[in-house]
Amino acid sequence: MAKKITSKSEDFSQWYQDVIREAKLADHSPVRGCMVIRPNGFALWENMKAALDQMFKDTGHENAYFPLFIPKSFLSKEAQHVEGFAKECAVVTHSRLKSADGGVEVDPESKLEEELIVRPTSETIIWDSYRNWIQSYRDLPILINQWANVVRWEMRTRLFLRTMEFLWQEGHTAHATKEEAVEETRRMLEVYRTFAEEYMAMPVTTGVKTESERFAGAVDTYCIETLLQDNKALQAGTSHFLGQNFARAFDVKFQSSEGQHEYVWATSWGVSTRLIGGLIMTHSDDQGLILPPKLAPDQVVIVPIWKSEEEKKNVLAYCDEIISELKELDVRVKLDDRENMSPGWKFNEHEAAGIPLRLTIGPRDLKNNNAELARRDTGDKDIVDREGLAEKVADLLDSIQDELFNTARDRIASNTHSADSYEEFREIIEEEGGFVYAHWDGTAETEEKIKDETKATIRCIPLDDGEEGKCMVTGKPSKQKVLFARAY
Amino acid sequence: MAKKITSKSEDFSQWYQDVIREAKLADHSPVRGCMVIRPNGFALWENMKAALDQMFKDTGHENAYFPLFIPKSFLSKEAQHVEGFAKECAVVTHSRLKSADGGVEVDPESKLEEELIVRPTSETIIWDSYRNWIQSYRDLPILINQWANVVRWEMRTRLFLRTMEFLWQEGHTAHATKEEAVEETRRMLEVYRTFAEEYMAMPVTTGVKTESERFAGAVDTYCIETLLQDNKALQAGTSHFLGQNFARAFDVKFQSSEGQHEYVWATSWGVSTRLIGGLIMTHSDDQGLILPPKLAPDQVVIVPIWKSEEEKKNVLAYCDEIISELKELDVRVKLDDRENMSPGWKFNEHEAAGIPLRLTIGPRDLKNNNAELARRDTGDKDIVDREGLAEKVADLLDSIQDELFNTARDRIASNTHSADSYEEFREIIEEEGGFVYAHWDGTAETEEKIKDETKATIRCIPLDDGEEGKCMVTGKPSKQKVLFARAY
Ligand SMILES: [Zn+2]
Ligand SMILES: [Zn+2]
Repeated sequence: MAKKITSKSEDFSQWYQDVIREAKLADHSPVRGCMVIRPNGFALWENMKAALDQMFKDTGHENAYFPLFIPKSFLSKEAQHVEGFAKECAVVTHSRLKSADGGVEVDPESKLEEELIVRPTSETIIWDSYRNWIQSYRDLPILINQWANVVRWEMRTRLFLRTMEFLWQEGHTAHATKEEAVEETRRMLEVYRTFAEEYMAMPVTTGVKTESERFAGAVDTYCIETLLQDNKALQAGTSHFLGQNFARAFDVKFQSSEGQHEYVWATSWGVSTRLIGGLIMTHSDDQGLILPPKLAPDQVVIVPIWKSEEEKKNVLAYCDEIISELKELDVRVKLDDRENMSPGWKFNEHEAAGIPLRLTIGPRDLKNNNAELARRDTGDKDIVDREGLAEKVADLLDSIQDELFNTARDRIASNTHSADSYEEFREIIEEEGGFVYAHWDGTAETEEKIKDETKATIRCIPLDDGEEGKCMVTGKPSKQKVLFARAY
Repeated sequence: MAKKITSKSEDFSQWYQDVIREAKLADHSPVRGCMVIRPNGFALWENMKAALDQMFKDTGHENAYFPLFIPKSFLSKEAQHVEGFAKECAVVTHSRLKSADGGVEVDPESKLEEELIVRPTSETIIWDSYRNWIQSYRDLPILINQWANVVRWEMRTRLFLRTMEFLWQEGHTAHATKEEAVEETRRMLEVYRTFAEEYMAMPVTTGVKTESERFAGAVDTYCIETLLQDNKALQAGTSHFLGQNFARAFDVKFQSSEGQHEYVWATSWGVSTRLIGGLIMTHSDDQGLILPPKLAPDQVVIVPIWKSEEEKKNVLAYCDEIISELKELDVRVKLDDRENMSPGWKFNEHEAAGIPLRLTIGPRDLKNNNAELARRDTGDKDIVDREGLAEKVADLLDSIQDELFNTARDRIASNTHSADSYEEFREIIEEEGGFVYAHWDGTAETEEKIKDETKATIRCIPLDDGEEGKCMVTGKPSKQKVLFARAY
């Protein structure tokens, strides 16, 4: 029997964990901070990967694979980079265990000359390869993406949102000019926005990070930010313009068409299994997960109902025809004909798992030539005609995809405010949360003060320049309002 | 300019490295024993993954993901298992670096209470999860596969064939009965055979390993073995019947339908990027890589030739039509219209990369309404009519796939011998290499002696029982001939 899901309004954090457990997406693992991604969660990730991978290939990128381990000395070649990652990394120091009273212990004789770091991100190991691959402008651009696991030694972890090991993709590109690299950085930001909005039905705001939130080693970090149902923000993806920082650190120069030797320009960009956390917190409810149809591993589940063997035969034949028609329309459909569970038990399981549509089909439906169709997102149930059923289901999946996006967009819009004074700002952050636009003087000191006093951070500086004004805290000049929120 | 590829007959090992370099499949990395899989190599791996993944799903398996790290204590829960893996593993002992005169050093204060092992294989971490997932026979079978990176601290490494980190898939299944688990083990062995033969065009022999070559923790290890062009054998995939060993080690019991509590039966099975090494050494030649069409990222490359702008326009339009027709037939085709390289330079590059077919199209072909078609495997060139070109290409790709298999099968057959005396055995192994069937008394001592004296190991005990006889070394009774070879 399914355990109850805590109400979202009662305890959002517990609700989130309950949804993940009941949807069988992931488990905590015995290794602190690591997770086990269960088949339901991994099938979702596979669909996200497939869509993103196609978008990367459509924008000219190829996949490759670089080593899991980074020599310790590499990490420190870029000064900002090591600053950002050295404090939370897994360090491999030995290469052997030996027997010791019934168990095993590290063999001290296997100590490595140079320690290896489990990659927290791969700029350093990749730019070391790029040095060998790049001689002339003819070798540029290099447009490579990697799907990989990375490790950051986080102390406070939460399934999907922040885990010690996570799965992600990291794009690493090399360009002959600054302009081209900046263009690439922004192109991939738009790819992320498109993916978040069109596949995840998760509306995002784009912008650039302040210096204090910038990726360690970047010149500019662009991001997509969304607002979740608890009115906290989530950074859902980042795209970095790295300037010539890594080219300098790893001495990667190219001969330009004019014969000059110049440092190469770089970008990197990534999204991770963190997106799954964002997806859950964007759409789900007290019955469990709600999945946008484009990413749902199963878009429709059919629950057949029968009593006699005769009924079983007829009902399953009727279901088979419907399944064929749905598959013709590329609908991902699953038949749940397990015999040792009641329909009610199955309904709960499918609702918790977030399957967008359920068809219930019993002997009466055969007689009346129809079926019961239930929507996961609204809970609506309808009796629909057998004639045209598959088309109706396919159309409805499209509508659900759109409606989930619209609902989230409206929710975010009604939780986005603009504050003209620090007092107003604090009141909104304290009482409602959500996104708040406000003027800021551009200094790290003011940013820090606001964070200390309100726990709100600058999520991004919007790309479309707004009107000038005065900082809500210091009264100093501000070029435009920036976006604040309390964030994960 | 491409460096020359060493002749296979002159230095097989150098030839192998040269082929990989010229085909741009992989690089050595600065981390000893790790490799960088370049876009050409990774695209090949993606095609292999896609085909295998579909075969796993068609046989009822789901994908999931388990942690990279295994607590040290887990590894030693199964006695044989730790014996097999403790001596070559990457051990994480610390979680932080700190600044130290210009660089960074391991922060001794971040020492872990319990060391973590970078997974060499995932039986232990997975069976720890299975304990939580399995209560009753209703929870069985569990049929899970994982695509992952694993690390084994090998001292002598070789690109693809044996690397410290490699990519693989590992299936881990749990069953209520021994019979079902054995059936699964054999089913996956057949999946591997089918994949090797039908996709890689790499003929394999199947059998069971002797005790000394068995996976650490298995009751029986089944394998697919092939013979490469240097007459050395390669273990290309393994499927293990694990009995109840891991269920006992991790205390995983289930309540049977009769209410009894019993240990669960297990299997595991895997293939890795090692297969790419096998693929290269099965088909390639002194011009570089030869790829079977089913796995080739590009099956056809078109090289257009022109002098004037007018010719360029017409030739490219002609190519475009051909490309459309080929795509209609699901042929993967690439146009190489780079302007800063000569056709000859491109030909060499495409040959080294193993693209199965090349179409060369110039103004004369437009006039005569044809095209020049070159086969990578045989080097044959033909002028083919424009009419029916796409169909001809598609058919030819099928033929090449078959012919590569047949050629490899014939090569292996003519290098497979049967020895009736130890003298004959040593002569064949010494002078020709290849597969040799011979009688063996079934003892580890004799197996060891043969290995010491000839460097040949028992690749497998064939599954189809052969005739009884007498061991070639000791004269003791032998149930059947077993398969020997020198191996990678
Ligand atoms: Zn409000
Ligand atoms: Zn011979």
